[in-house]
Amino acid sequence: MTSRQIRVYKDLMGENEKWAVEIRGLLADKSVAMFNLIGSPGSGKTALLESLAQSEAGAFRFAVLEGDVETTHDAERLDRHNVIVSQLLSGGACHLEAKLVHHALRDLPLDELDVVFVENVGNLVCPAEFDIGENAKVAVLSVTEGEDKPVKYPLLFTEAKAVVLTKTDLLPHLRFNIDECVSYIRQVNADVPVLKVSSQTGEGMDRWCGWVGQAVKARSGR
Amino acid sequence: MTSRQIRVYKDLMGENEKWAVEIRGLLADKSVAMFNLIGSPGSGKTALLESLAQSEAGAFRFAVLEGDVETTHDAERLDRHNVIVSQLLSGGACHLEAKLVHHALRDLPLDELDVVFVENVGNLVCPAEFDIGENAKVAVLSVTEGEDKPVKYPLLFTEAKAVVLTKTDLLPHLRFNIDECVSYIRQVNADVPVLKVSSQTGEGMDRWCGWVGQAVKARSGR
Repeated sequence: MTSRQIRVYKDLMGENEKWAVEIRGLLADKSVAMFNLIGSPGSGKTALLESLAQSEAGAFRFAVLEGDVETTHDAERLDRHNVIVSQLLSGGACHLEAKLVHHALRDLPLDELDVVFVENVGNLVCPAEFDIGENAKVAVLSVTEGEDKPVKYPLLFTEAKAVVLTKTDLLPHLRFNIDECVSYIRQVNADVPVLKVSSQTGEGMDRWCGWVGQAVKARSGR
Repeated sequence: MTSRQIRVYKDLMGENEKWAVEIRGLLADKSVAMFNLIGSPGSGKTALLESLAQSEAGAFRFAVLEGDVETTHDAERLDRHNVIVSQLLSGGACHLEAKLVHHALRDLPLDELDVVFVENVGNLVCPAEFDIGENAKVAVLSVTEGEDKPVKYPLLFTEAKAVVLTKTDLLPHLRFNIDECVSYIRQVNADVPVLKVSSQTGEGMDRWCGWVGQAVKARSGR
């Protein structure tokens, strides 16, 4: 008789998917929607959440899970607006995985919430590849990044349920053709809503808040 | 007697390192320097290379390996400046690996070059983790991205031999404190040169070209 030692190799994506399923169950159980905000470093993801805290307080109750490689800067920004926020440190990784999101979600007061926003690590590639059990991915693209990012990083823009074009106040100072950018978005995602906003002037923030409000209603059934 | 099937699991980072060693040998043999440009999507990496093509033609002979998830847009931009350029498509990956860089390097006319620039995939995280046999990593950060990126994405800024702060022409329209940003850079890399440039006005491009010229001289021994 031979005794054999069996080595176990885990499929990491499979492991991630298992936790994503757990998250979907938890969110459905609590009638809470979850949106996964994905964009480059400095594209204005935190500013979008600050705007929600300022202009739509009361319309829906939300919390934020802030993903970063390092620091708690973004969580501190939102805490100043009295947003319920936890910081998720990826430990060097370029995206958030479902296991960590699940652990943080469990500690939120889900019974008192309508929606949870996950601000993913600043990156247009990897966060789009990892399902974290969200109802929708939202792509955040700053007009300072150039028109062609939707076709250079197509997975995110194909999967997004909304594209937010940020920093439109800078348009007069840039050589950026917004119609060309929208046309690139349309190449990979024909019907996705494109919301043009500026957190400096507040322009377009009503449409962003309106989109969130409608999406929350549709997802959570409240 | 038992017959056992032996499964082989490759350590991918080890495989990458093997190719990085090959690249270092090839570059040393040809006395060619190689710089790895790393920055967010739309941070102005290609514009830095366009500036080199325009203002310093003749001072050193260079080629570019353009890394992207998809499209050949950036290679086409440089081709219009008569730069020797190849496009490296990462196939969905968020960084370039040494094997692909080695394959592309072999096809360049290295005997006629002083330096090769690799423009990595737009991302502040993963490209910093993968050694591609370069002499130096150069971090490219746009002032539109906010002051704190060096501490939020510390690996790149710790390893960089130069930090290029781009789009300084937009400073009058931003709430961006450049001293605070430099102080964040200093927290992770005390002595790294910080070069402030604008590809729109050309400001600072002489210092960028000068840094490259000196670094090429120091590395290639020419």
